[in-house]
Amino acid sequence: MRSCTGCWASDKLHEECGVFGISLSPHDSYSVANETYLALFALQHRGQESSGIATSNDGKIHVIKKSGLVPEVFDERTLQSLQGNMAIGHVRYSSHSESSAINAQPLAVTHINGSMAIACNGTLVNGAKLRHDAELSGAIFQTTNDTEVIAYMLVRERLGTPLMEQAVKNIMSYVAGAYSMVIISGSKLIAARDPFGFKPLCMGMLGSSVVFASESCAFDAIGARFVRDVEPGEIIVAENGSVTSAMRSEWQARSSLCVFEFVYFARPDSVIDGLSVEHVRQEFGKYLAMRDNVKGDIVIGVPDSGLSAALGYSKQAGIPYGVGLVKNRYIGRTFIQNTQSQREKSVSIKLNALSAEVKGKRVIMVDDSIVRGTTCAHIVSILRQAGASEVHMRVSSPPFLHRCYYGTDIPREQDLIAHNHTVEQIAEMINVDTLMYLDERDLRHAMSGLRIGYCDACFTGNYPVRISSESENQKEGRIQV
Amino acid sequence: MRSCTGCWASDKLHEECGVFGISLSPHDSYSVANETYLALFALQHRGQESSGIATSNDGKIHVIKKSGLVPEVFDERTLQSLQGNMAIGHVRYSSHSESSAINAQPLAVTHINGSMAIACNGTLVNGAKLRHDAELSGAIFQTTNDTEVIAYMLVRERLGTPLMEQAVKNIMSYVAGAYSMVIISGSKLIAARDPFGFKPLCMGMLGSSVVFASESCAFDAIGARFVRDVEPGEIIVAENGSVTSAMRSEWQARSSLCVFEFVYFARPDSVIDGLSVEHVRQEFGKYLAMRDNVKGDIVIGVPDSGLSAALGYSKQAGIPYGVGLVKNRYIGRTFIQNTQSQREKSVSIKLNALSAEVKGKRVIMVDDSIVRGTTCAHIVSILRQAGASEVHMRVSSPPFLHRCYYGTDIPREQDLIAHNHTVEQIAEMINVDTLMYLDERDLRHAMSGLRIGYCDACFTGNYPVRISSESENQKEGRIQV
Amino acid sequence: MRSCTGCWASDKLHEECGVFGISLSPHDSYSVANETYLALFALQHRGQESSGIATSNDGKIHVIKKSGLVPEVFDERTLQSLQGNMAIGHVRYSSHSESSAINAQPLAVTHINGSMAIACNGTLVNGAKLRHDAELSGAIFQTTNDTEVIAYMLVRERLGTPLMEQAVKNIMSYVAGAYSMVIISGSKLIAARDPFGFKPLCMGMLGSSVVFASESCAFDAIGARFVRDVEPGEIIVAENGSVTSAMRSEWQARSSLCVFEFVYFARPDSVIDGLSVEHVRQEFGKYLAMRDNVKGDIVIGVPDSGLSAALGYSKQAGIPYGVGLVKNRYIGRTFIQNTQSQREKSVSIKLNALSAEVKGKRVIMVDDSIVRGTTCAHIVSILRQAGASEVHMRVSSPPFLHRCYYGTDIPREQDLIAHNHTVEQIAEMINVDTLMYLDERDLRHAMSGLRIGYCDACFTGNYPVRISSESENQKEGRIQV
Amino acid sequence: MRSCTGCWASDKLHEECGVFGISLSPHDSYSVANETYLALFALQHRGQESSGIATSNDGKIHVIKKSGLVPEVFDERTLQSLQGNMAIGHVRYSSHSESSAINAQPLAVTHINGSMAIACNGTLVNGAKLRHDAELSGAIFQTTNDTEVIAYMLVRERLGTPLMEQAVKNIMSYVAGAYSMVIISGSKLIAARDPFGFKPLCMGMLGSSVVFASESCAFDAIGARFVRDVEPGEIIVAENGSVTSAMRSEWQARSSLCVFEFVYFARPDSVIDGLSVEHVRQEFGKYLAMRDNVKGDIVIGVPDSGLSAALGYSKQAGIPYGVGLVKNRYIGRTFIQNTQSQREKSVSIKLNALSAEVKGKRVIMVDDSIVRGTTCAHIVSILRQAGASEVHMRVSSPPFLHRCYYGTDIPREQDLIAHNHTVEQIAEMINVDTLMYLDERDLRHAMSGLRIGYCDACFTGNYPVRISSESENQKEGRIQV
Repeated sequence: MRSCTGCWASDKLHEECGVFGISLSPHDSYSVANETYLALFALQHRGQESSGIATSNDGKIHVIKKSGLVPEVFDERTLQSLQGNMAIGHVRYSSHSESSAINAQPLAVTHINGSMAIACNGTLVNGAKLRHDAELSGAIFQTTNDTEVIAYMLVRERLGTPLMEQAVKNIMSYVAGAYSMVIISGSKLIAARDPFGFKPLCMGMLGSSVVFASESCAFDAIGARFVRDVEPGEIIVAENGSVTSAMRSEWQARSSLCVFEFVYFARPDSVIDGLSVEHVRQEFGKYLAMRDNVKGDIVIGVPDSGLSAALGYSKQAGIPYGVGLVKNRYIGRTFIQNTQSQREKSVSIKLNALSAEVKGKRVIMVDDSIVRGTTCAHIVSILRQAGASEVHMRVSSPPFLHRCYYGTDIPREQDLIAHNHTVEQIAEMINVDTLMYLDERDLRHAMSGLRIGYCDACFTGNYPVRISSESENQKEGRIQV
Repeated sequence: MRSCTGCWASDKLHEECGVFGISLSPHDSYSVANETYLALFALQHRGQESSGIATSNDGKIHVIKKSGLVPEVFDERTLQSLQGNMAIGHVRYSSHSESSAINAQPLAVTHINGSMAIACNGTLVNGAKLRHDAELSGAIFQTTNDTEVIAYMLVRERLGTPLMEQAVKNIMSYVAGAYSMVIISGSKLIAARDPFGFKPLCMGMLGSSVVFASESCAFDAIGARFVRDVEPGEIIVAENGSVTSAMRSEWQARSSLCVFEFVYFARPDSVIDGLSVEHVRQEFGKYLAMRDNVKGDIVIGVPDSGLSAALGYSKQAGIPYGVGLVKNRYIGRTFIQNTQSQREKSVSIKLNALSAEVKGKRVIMVDDSIVRGTTCAHIVSILRQAGASEVHMRVSSPPFLHRCYYGTDIPREQDLIAHNHTVEQIAEMINVDTLMYLDERDLRHAMSGLRIGYCDACFTGNYPVRISSESENQKEGRIQV
Repeated sequence: MRSCTGCWASDKLHEECGVFGISLSPHDSYSVANETYLALFALQHRGQESSGIATSNDGKIHVIKKSGLVPEVFDERTLQSLQGNMAIGHVRYSSHSESSAINAQPLAVTHINGSMAIACNGTLVNGAKLRHDAELSGAIFQTTNDTEVIAYMLVRERLGTPLMEQAVKNIMSYVAGAYSMVIISGSKLIAARDPFGFKPLCMGMLGSSVVFASESCAFDAIGARFVRDVEPGEIIVAENGSVTSAMRSEWQARSSLCVFEFVYFARPDSVIDGLSVEHVRQEFGKYLAMRDNVKGDIVIGVPDSGLSAALGYSKQAGIPYGVGLVKNRYIGRTFIQNTQSQREKSVSIKLNALSAEVKGKRVIMVDDSIVRGTTCAHIVSILRQAGASEVHMRVSSPPFLHRCYYGTDIPREQDLIAHNHTVEQIAEMINVDTLMYLDERDLRHAMSGLRIGYCDACFTGNYPVRISSESENQKEGRIQV
Repeated sequence: MRSCTGCWASDKLHEECGVFGISLSPHDSYSVANETYLALFALQHRGQESSGIATSNDGKIHVIKKSGLVPEVFDERTLQSLQGNMAIGHVRYSSHSESSAINAQPLAVTHINGSMAIACNGTLVNGAKLRHDAELSGAIFQTTNDTEVIAYMLVRERLGTPLMEQAVKNIMSYVAGAYSMVIISGSKLIAARDPFGFKPLCMGMLGSSVVFASESCAFDAIGARFVRDVEPGEIIVAENGSVTSAMRSEWQARSSLCVFEFVYFARPDSVIDGLSVEHVRQEFGKYLAMRDNVKGDIVIGVPDSGLSAALGYSKQAGIPYGVGLVKNRYIGRTFIQNTQSQREKSVSIKLNALSAEVKGKRVIMVDDSIVRGTTCAHIVSILRQAGASEVHMRVSSPPFLHRCYYGTDIPREQDLIAHNHTVEQIAEMINVDTLMYLDERDLRHAMSGLRIGYCDACFTGNYPVRISSESENQKEGRIQV
């Protein structure tokens, strides 16, 4: 369902989502839907499959959500129809799945005490078990989303407590996985980050109103001020634009922000848990250069994700930074691939080598990671056709070896090129003169300013929690909608 | 949510849906999706808001459903993607509601024993109570559909029985209301009609395969043979194209087919519970004429629903039948009304009087019913402008006085013109020379060939079951999606 | 390019277009675009391929035109953008041609004296020759429309006269063919009908403003009053809502309104050149019955075009009129045909027989014409399957034998079933018990009230003008756009 | 018609178009439509308003063209329908003009000797006069494109010569302006570049087939080999994949490639008339730095067009290159601006400053040009909000002072900020600490490797031909379509 073999983007990981929430102060007159629209647009890189906004005026919830990019799903008329003093929004990652329509978020439900809307970035490790337990007592599921599981858990806890935030706290003791989320319940906007803090979530102020977002770049887009990150295990309640409560889960977890946020997922202009994404990426490049002694004439990055590390490498190594690859900036979801021969040309359509920059030169090419290796090999061949005399690849992360249980859309381990091959073998397969990965210790150094711990299990296999065989074999839902 | 004031169709009732199901015989090679597509197209008059098809190959269920007419929702590619040996389909009635996307059917869910898809034509009387009971034990609802309530009830019953058909039988003892439905569960296609038989449902054979449909006209469209009606309270199970079981609810109910199927809803070429719809409509006209002594020069029907009764009236009265009103056959959902002045012209855009037929004549105009009376008044004025010297309106049903609790989309009683006014007052309000309704006794005579009983509560207030104040005040769900 | 074999509508002729024009009086405040929109919607039956509106405010011309039905092409925003005190509009007939976009009308052009927009219903007999002559002096053509030829001729004549109406009069002496048209030129709205009057065109008043339309039903739709028909060879100029001039071509032609307007094309509620279309169609049926002595139990029409003649037949013959065939009213351009087996079912999807009406009966079935005969044969088989004991077909026009040179989209003569077969052979081919066509003399009687002459060359081969071999072989343009 | 005030892109110039052509060798089996599709996609930066492809098989021409990006206009089915052994394609620049549909290219016409399709990148200086002359002899115009004027001229010349290439040569003696174009005529593909060579055009080989394109990056996208530039005044004829003739205009013109191709229009990976675009841009930056003595901590470029010059500046000045501004890569035509307050935020939505890079730093910001200055001012304020202590703007082109008569979409001179203000005034208006433009002499040095002359009239007012008052006042056409 998630594979997109043959697609130009197939050799990149996919983030699972971005979320945003706003609780309007009585002193402000923003349109909560418009602000959410703009913020989601800034978070579009976190998900291109579907977009949705739910608004509420202390009661009745309105949702509009659909397959498509933010500007495709919403227009002036639909935004106008979304009134209220609270809103949450969601963007979902891109795939060719038919399931986009039904799995779009926010998920709005009614329950015995009213209604609720929830937008979640994440995946549960014990989702299948929780789903099964709920089904045993008669629950039905309409999506394959873990967000629906969370909604069930919340509603069941809510039966025993008058406070939704307490229900959130309660489920945190047994819902395992990654789940940064925003919730509308009654007059409250609740933001919560799982005890491990796998996914980023931060808080800001827009005028006198409270806002939450997956990444700080969303605040910049709407002119909001960053206040602080939501901490792992923290539950913050806002009402009428003011924070009324901040509880904390009792689960003592090793904080484990996903390192791939820094490697690839996040926008460079975001600051996550105290660290600038751009800064870290340049550091990755710097550390690569510190251990390197290859002779090169030019350092280039693979657009867009390899550029920052290339710049950092160049500065450290004292080798000129250059633009060796140009990306067609109109590449998008609408680009179709008509024939087999076109598919073969698809990387050329996306990227072109700049012959004037690389001809006759020893090129040091930096990219953020190698997943399957197929795209890499194409890019290298483009550079060689453009006249590069040598191509040395530098990867600004360690070898990608292990699958992820927390929402990152990673191929099966047997499809990970580094899982089955030595660095030398990979170098040969992608036809580079030399290949070097970021050392894990250097990764650690570059990340040392992070205010919390991070998860690098995809590189180390060192998972923050023991993974049961159940989640390893977690079956996909049987309905495809 | 359901009102469409100002819309040309606002003075007509809306049916709640049409359903279709097919269980493929191993001896046949039909595409179940294609056959369902054609059948739904024949049932399009029962619902224009959304369309959906679910298919299954004894396990994995695929659903495609969306707002729009059948040919708008499906194309060659989407039909191709719907493979299997069973299918169910659904068309939902037209309104301006934003809720169309999420409320589209079939509803596909997973539960502890597998997956299920359900398409239902109907409304529950005790839906709110059942929903509340389920919520008390932690259920969440994502739609405002009673079909979701039925799905919950089925799944809960299913926990205690290995047979889904038994679960269907079990819920029949406490789920009150109208609900003709088709269900895919495991390898079974289950068709069920509520104990009152409010909504039609019939069974046929396409080659060696079993088919079910709301109306027999769907069988004609795909070349299937009509076998028999599903009886009130009956549950029929088909597997691999053969009927394997037919159970019956134990609830002893007074069979109560909705009389409006014959008055207006059904296609004239359908045969329901033993009676031809066209035949009954002509009988309505005949009985009207038998009690009438007005002098007229021409009998005309209001297209399309008044034509059959007008023909019956004409034959009985010996007054020539004519075409006095011509309908623009391109009227559709896409027609927009731009300005206030255009709205005033909207009936003229839909209907035009045929001056050559009515000029200088005493016109007897037959229509199936009067709901609010607004459209009627416009049509009468059009006829008078075209030169009709007299306009005598004859209505092929008794005065419409009471609301419906079984799924028919009827305005509040205070909006029903007959609820507040005498026949003389109505005649004056719509500016006809004389007005006559069908006598209830004549309705009974015309319907005498029906194999089961019928419900005429909208005319008589004589409801088949006592209506609790709860259902009278049944609140709409609090989520608008 | 125009064939649509396999399509359910392929056995019907296609009209070439409908036009409308309005010149606003300073005393009125209508939106000329909105009124044109409504009028075109009433003329939609004359063309479903493309729709267009041009407006002008005594100078600058704005045009919006596209493939699609009127409500598909225009919405509130686009109508709003079309301002002015004059407008012309056009609907173009439906086909599968890819050429729809570029051939859409109105055609707007600039020339040495300003700008002009033209909307034309018709086809030229000497179009290829005129085009060739223009090309000889350097003209280029961008469409395959004769309207572009007319535009060239007008502009060339206009070089020698200060009056566009004089240019219209001048070209009438050598442009041969059918061309009812409306033109915006400077501050003038010009309406003109070719000297033969092949195509209808009438004039009316909307408030104090002047309107022109292909059929009077467009006036009814907007609440305009019919004033009179534009006469063959007449050129009427309106300015600021007043008629300022009415000239006449000097070409003495035998007036030749296309008889198929009465047989099939026009809406029954239109009155053309003094005759009600509905009345004439009933007369056709009456005359058929007068010469008939077949024993029948019921007279039915093939919807929609055979209904009026069936009614006329029934009244004359004293045999009851009934509804034997029901049409699916959602059939439209979007209906797709997915597989070969569905194509075979396509007539069943469009039409269903009403078994209750026809079972065991001797059915007299009336349709307006037989072109290829394929659809007829299908309908007859549907009736027989529904139990009709005999089927007698009556055609409310004479046998269709000859092609048309004036814009009617007629198959090659070898494809016309009546061109190659006797009535007996046709009866056998379409499997009816008896078959009878309208006698040409009766056609004449029924049309006797027409204020001008008519063309029945498709029945008689008696063309109003000698057809050169050139136009018989008129090649289609070489560009397909 | 061309203004888009308030739009985020309004402060950039717009290129007029990109063209591509292919003449298939009998030895190759490429789909000419597919290759054209891919090539146009690589040229998309030259025009986003409309896209079109015309194919021909030595005779019948098929065209598909529409408003929209290349992947929006074409899909598998439409490409499939475009068969032939020749193709030309066109992309047109983006604006909010309603005229997109009718002005889309290629333009296909029939004339006395057959048919022709033409795609042109350019604008005529004497277009209005040529149009007027043609109108005097009866020509009509359906677009506001100069391409239609060129088509008329070609057809008229073609009346006197059997060779279309001779006709092309003939018009070159009096058609003044910029016009790189590709033409399909009969079995020939003709490529021509005006005697001044204002617009780029190059020739390549794909297998054994001949291809032409506005920029060499289109060849890279399809895997074609660059052969050489088409020279100013050159006319090249290809037939069946072979070059059969290369003629030359007799007009002795000063070759005048538009300098803005190097400043902004062209893709950095293209090589034009012997010079790499990326190389020249870096040179611009280098020369800026050579004359500069400002103290800075970081050099940043405004994405995307300022990046190359920033890199060149950084290398020369020895000041670190950094990423100070991040662009939202999902910005596109579909992004809507809902409210006034959003419009104010529109630059923030497009660009965000990278605080971690610029905070507390003296920032040297490089952009390619300043047109109106509004966007600049916004970007500067974003950088200051992000903490830049100083902002020094460097512009990699001389001040923009004069309008263009050759197709570049430049605002009126009074709207050019440099036309009315000194450098100091501009610096104050856009709130930078210092502002420096590229010196004209340095521009000359950087361009010194160009194989032909170039036009820098927008900087110098030194136009290659005297501009008559006629073209200064050239009226827009009076039809808006």
